[in-house]
Amino acid sequence: MEEDQSPGLGLAGETPGLKHGNGVGDSPEDPAGSAGDGISSLEKPLLKRSNTLTSSHLAMVGAKVSHIESLDYEIIENDLFKHDWRSRSNVEVLQYIFLKWSLAFLVGLLTGVIASLINLAIENISGLKMLHMVHLVREKRYWAGFFYFSGFNFVLTFIAAVLCVVFAPTAAGPGIPEIKAYLNGVDTPNMFGAPQLIVKIIGSICAVSSGLDLGKEGPLVHIGACLANLLSQGGSGRFRLRWRWLRYFNNDRDRRDLITCGASSGVCAAFRSPVGGVLFALEEVATWWRSALLWRTFFSTATVVVVLRGFIEVCRGGRCGLFGEGGLIIFDVSDVTVRYRLGDLLLVTLVGVIGGVLGALYNHVLHMVLRLYNLINDKGRMAKLALALAVCVFTSAGLYVLPFAVPCTPCDPAFGAACPATGRSGNFKQFNCPAGQYNDLATLLHATNVDATRNIFSTGTPGEFRLDSLLIFFAIYEIILDLKGLPFLEPKPEPWMKDLTVGELAAAKPRTISLQVVEKVSTVLEVLRNTGHNGFPVVDRPRPGLSELHGLVLRSHLVAVLRKRWFLLEKRRTEEWEARERFSSVELADKNCKIDGLELTPEELEMYIDLHPFTNTTPYTVVETMSVAKAVVLFRSVALRHMLIMPKYQGPEISPLVGILTRQDLRAHNILGAFPHLAKKSKTH
Amino acid sequence: MEEDQSPGLGLAGETPGLKHGNGVGDSPEDPAGSAGDGISSLEKPLLKRSNTLTSSHLAMVGAKVSHIESLDYEIIENDLFKHDWRSRSNVEVLQYIFLKWSLAFLVGLLTGVIASLINLAIENISGLKMLHMVHLVREKRYWAGFFYFSGFNFVLTFIAAVLCVVFAPTAAGPGIPEIKAYLNGVDTPNMFGAPQLIVKIIGSICAVSSGLDLGKEGPLVHIGACLANLLSQGGSGRFRLRWRWLRYFNNDRDRRDLITCGASSGVCAAFRSPVGGVLFALEEVATWWRSALLWRTFFSTATVVVVLRGFIEVCRGGRCGLFGEGGLIIFDVSDVTVRYRLGDLLLVTLVGVIGGVLGALYNHVLHMVLRLYNLINDKGRMAKLALALAVCVFTSAGLYVLPFAVPCTPCDPAFGAACPATGRSGNFKQFNCPAGQYNDLATLLHATNVDATRNIFSTGTPGEFRLDSLLIFFAIYEIILDLKGLPFLEPKPEPWMKDLTVGELAAAKPRTISLQVVEKVSTVLEVLRNTGHNGFPVVDRPRPGLSELHGLVLRSHLVAVLRKRWFLLEKRRTEEWEARERFSSVELADKNCKIDGLELTPEELEMYIDLHPFTNTTPYTVVETMSVAKAVVLFRSVALRHMLIMPKYQGPEISPLVGILTRQDLRAHNILGAFPHLAKKSKTH
Repeated sequence: MEEDQSPGLGLAGETPGLKHGNGVGDSPEDPAGSAGDGISSLEKPLLKRSNTLTSSHLAMVGAKVSHIESLDYEIIENDLFKHDWRSRSNVEVLQYIFLKWSLAFLVGLLTGVIASLINLAIENISGLKMLHMVHLVREKRYWAGFFYFSGFNFVLTFIAAVLCVVFAPTAAGPGIPEIKAYLNGVDTPNMFGAPQLIVKIIGSICAVSSGLDLGKEGPLVHIGACLANLLSQGGSGRFRLRWRWLRYFNNDRDRRDLITCGASSGVCAAFRSPVGGVLFALEEVATWWRSALLWRTFFSTATVVVVLRGFIEVCRGGRCGLFGEGGLIIFDVSDVTVRYRLGDLLLVTLVGVIGGVLGALYNHVLHMVLRLYNLINDKGRMAKLALALAVCVFTSAGLYVLPFAVPCTPCDPAFGAACPATGRSGNFKQFNCPAGQYNDLATLLHATNVDATRNIFSTGTPGEFRLDSLLIFFAIYEIILDLKGLPFLEPKPEPWMKDLTVGELAAAKPRTISLQVVEKVSTVLEVLRNTGHNGFPVVDRPRPGLSELHGLVLRSHLVAVLRKRWFLLEKRRTEEWEARERFSSVELADKNCKIDGLELTPEELEMYIDLHPFTNTTPYTVVETMSVAKAVVLFRSVALRHMLIMPKYQGPEISPLVGILTRQDLRAHNILGAFPHLAKKSKTH
Repeated sequence: MEEDQSPGLGLAGETPGLKHGNGVGDSPEDPAGSAGDGISSLEKPLLKRSNTLTSSHLAMVGAKVSHIESLDYEIIENDLFKHDWRSRSNVEVLQYIFLKWSLAFLVGLLTGVIASLINLAIENISGLKMLHMVHLVREKRYWAGFFYFSGFNFVLTFIAAVLCVVFAPTAAGPGIPEIKAYLNGVDTPNMFGAPQLIVKIIGSICAVSSGLDLGKEGPLVHIGACLANLLSQGGSGRFRLRWRWLRYFNNDRDRRDLITCGASSGVCAAFRSPVGGVLFALEEVATWWRSALLWRTFFSTATVVVVLRGFIEVCRGGRCGLFGEGGLIIFDVSDVTVRYRLGDLLLVTLVGVIGGVLGALYNHVLHMVLRLYNLINDKGRMAKLALALAVCVFTSAGLYVLPFAVPCTPCDPAFGAACPATGRSGNFKQFNCPAGQYNDLATLLHATNVDATRNIFSTGTPGEFRLDSLLIFFAIYEIILDLKGLPFLEPKPEPWMKDLTVGELAAAKPRTISLQVVEKVSTVLEVLRNTGHNGFPVVDRPRPGLSELHGLVLRSHLVAVLRKRWFLLEKRRTEEWEARERFSSVELADKNCKIDGLELTPEELEMYIDLHPFTNTTPYTVVETMSVAKAVVLFRSVALRHMLIMPKYQGPEISPLVGILTRQDLRAHNILGAFPHLAKKSKTH
């Protein structure tokens, strides 16, 4: 091995296309161009390429523009991992399994309890508000009623908005797009922490109680995911539990599994459907779903249902304030068995079609509203706050004034003299009408989210599956995902992806930066400073004419080595115990990638780092001639973060690596930016 | 390229470990052994190996020992496929999508109709039988009753048994293990054809009507799968529809998708649970599940539910003989809303635990009974028939005689003088008891599968999900799958698989046989005659020192080339149009691999075949250092049939291929046969 290789300068006999240094400013070369004229015609790309495959690492997380990264779901099979694995005893394996199921149970339990408490709070707060408002209206003190109603809503909205804007901007919005993206493999920072959990709980209570037109479904799913994340980490920040067992969960893979349980529990709590919760999880993480996860998710959602039922029994006796049998809402409506005939299905289908058309329209309007909101959000915190309060005042005025515009309806004589509306029981709202009549619009508008609450608190069969609501709930979010710029990998590759090879795609990227298996400290530092990549291919040339793609090393591991100053005086391969002595698996699981404060002496910069113990020697590889369509399926099926491209031909002058592809490179939108003619082809095909 | 390469003899400079010919009798060599002493120590395997990785290609399909093969779910990206793909117009793509959904609908429709008809037939046949038997008993003609009852059952069993034994041995048994194996990627021959469908329909009607202790669930799932398979092929054998559109479905991938819909429809028909059907599919094909399939499966199962409901409405008026409102069974029991309190859950949990213990016991007994049956099955057809009839006589005697042993129970006075049992309505069986009393055992035993029928014909919410019955139905079949020798790939790799690399595994196999990209006809013929492999790696050496793993060619494609005698006089690469002119995509989708009658002249044997147009140039590859655990996950996730192992080091003297692994090689049982110390290690760990 050459001792004096300088960065950015390939030596004679060096593998082409694989040079050290940051590569910025190098002119792009055909990676296999020097492999000889004999084969160059076979390798000539079918498509003209423009060297502009770029990607953005910014996306809207909640209401905050954040730097996003991919998650590592792949097992990093390096020496240290292998040793850690071999040294695990059977007892430790059992501990791990026990912990997995216990955490799944805890996630279900806590989601159920919090969902129940949120409902209780909402029903009591908005119930109190309604009772007093109706009282004022019946005394014909209309203006007092209006100011009381609007003021109450204003205060609630103010609390919710301030919490979101000041403490946790990522908690704004439904949270579902971010959860979908996370389960798809995109790390969304500051999304599932303790501040988000607390803000989401208080915020959703205040916002729903204030009469804003939003449901508890989204927040509940987000709350479940937050709970799961916090449990997997043993808590948040300073209050983190430093329990030894939890080290098993210090990886993206197990954390994602638990967050899947959490999100499903949230869906289950929102729709009171354990199967629905599992189906949500399935739909979202379908491509790398495992049967084991199915049963664990079911365990979580079943726990949620048991907890919800427990709360119903407690509240049945009227021990929950305005909520319960004698409360403002009538639950158990689903006790009535719905009978339907075959002919009804036609009607239902018609309603479905109309719903679909309206849904498309809604999507269109949503799109525009979101763009408008985005403009306002750009103006800063105060603008956001003002927007929320403006919407609140507008909604309050509408809710209060509109019922005055409709005529009163006489009560059904079957009920006797008066509708069962006065006071606490019954849900016919008399509002401004004389006795014996009711205001139907007030009945509709002044209900305290009966529908959502009935969903969560009725006692029909717990296995019931509300396909319609679930569909509407999850379909109307795809749009937001795209608008937010979250790099979601679609399950199905685009048809035109069959016409492009991964080799062509890799060639459209800036040069791949790779490291030697025993590398100079200065080179490593330079590479880390000049690029933001999270994985670097490691190549080796044990002797002239013999080359090897040794594997892939993670940025976080390089940073760990630099911080510990684990440097070698001469260029040599270390023994296995040397690295094991200095690096624990817990340390290496840490994802801290900051090297800002790092100062190295000129002597240290001349030393070497042995990457053998840290390199994942079995990254997933594909041949450069594979179509992008096939590669995307592999990428998503095995949940990859990096995919290495190998050359088709192997020979002494050919580099063992063509390039590296990541999630961003495989997104249809980014590819079309570099190969615009593919888009045309797909349209005029 | 050398012109005179003789089979079985590697030339100087030939890639080691990759010789032509069948390889039988060659002594195994370290595939990279000749790569130089400089690296041999790095490559030395960690584990001692014994060269005995063997696998069986025989398994029990139904009651017949059959030769099994793996399915090709991978897209074979060869030149011909690529051209076929590029030449598809948008209209054809739309046709394909339309057809996919139409077939999913048809599968649901037909499954629903057949399930309804089976139920109708069973209820009427066994109803008639019961009515007359009860009549004889009440006239105290006990012996006549016994012979009538046993004789009736005997005839029914005889029909079912003869059908199974003579016409379709693969239709014997529940069929679920074979469906599980098929969806896992194992082709089970003669399993989903027209004879199986017909035998299964008539057989299950006869067997269930004869009072044998078996359900309609298994048969219904099998029937759904048969229907799907037949629809995807446009019919069976001579009666096959040669519709142009159906060519899109002439591949394992689309056929599997449709069979998934069919099996789910069957589950839905058996348990009246569309969600249950989808969950079954999910659990079985989970690893390569796609969201698109979720909705298509749902569409099928929803269709089934609509059809079942239609039949209920028709039968409600009593137009279905003994079946319906005035019939022998009371349906709509689920109209009663089941209310339960939290405390009941403890009791249910207890019942679940007891059920689990009993289930384990049941599995044990089942294991023994199956082994006994297997012994009898080995004796030939007559023994099988005798077994079925003996079980029938034994069951009939038990069903008839046992009720006489219990005392009579007086009817509840609330019902009036007599229990609502006589004639057609009500289900209290008076049997041998005096008026005003009933025989409770007869009430239980002489019901016509009320439970199963209620499942299928009650009108509660169609989304209801019977988790318990589904669980019992599917869990406890795993055993049978194993006993039958079906090579099912478990979703989770064994822990000890992390300690073995794919390179070591490949080295324990007989030498890999590979072909040159332009190969002699005689060599191809010899390879096909001497091996049973279904895929052969294709290597190329465009010039000395430069080697290439060109890809993988399927046995069926080689056979197609030989049959068409598409030979070249000299060793050259053909133009793309030459192959396209001779081979249509429909022909290449044919899986006929027989070369028995093929006679080639000595001149033809000296000619060449160009494999370029047929080679899948992008097979999935892994590096030899990858652990078997990681490779198994990839294999199952992407649904592979062949996985190629690449060398770690690349150089002029190193072969571009280490070996090839298939489903059988990755089964824990087979690996342990070759590496027995791994089993010890996993136990004493």
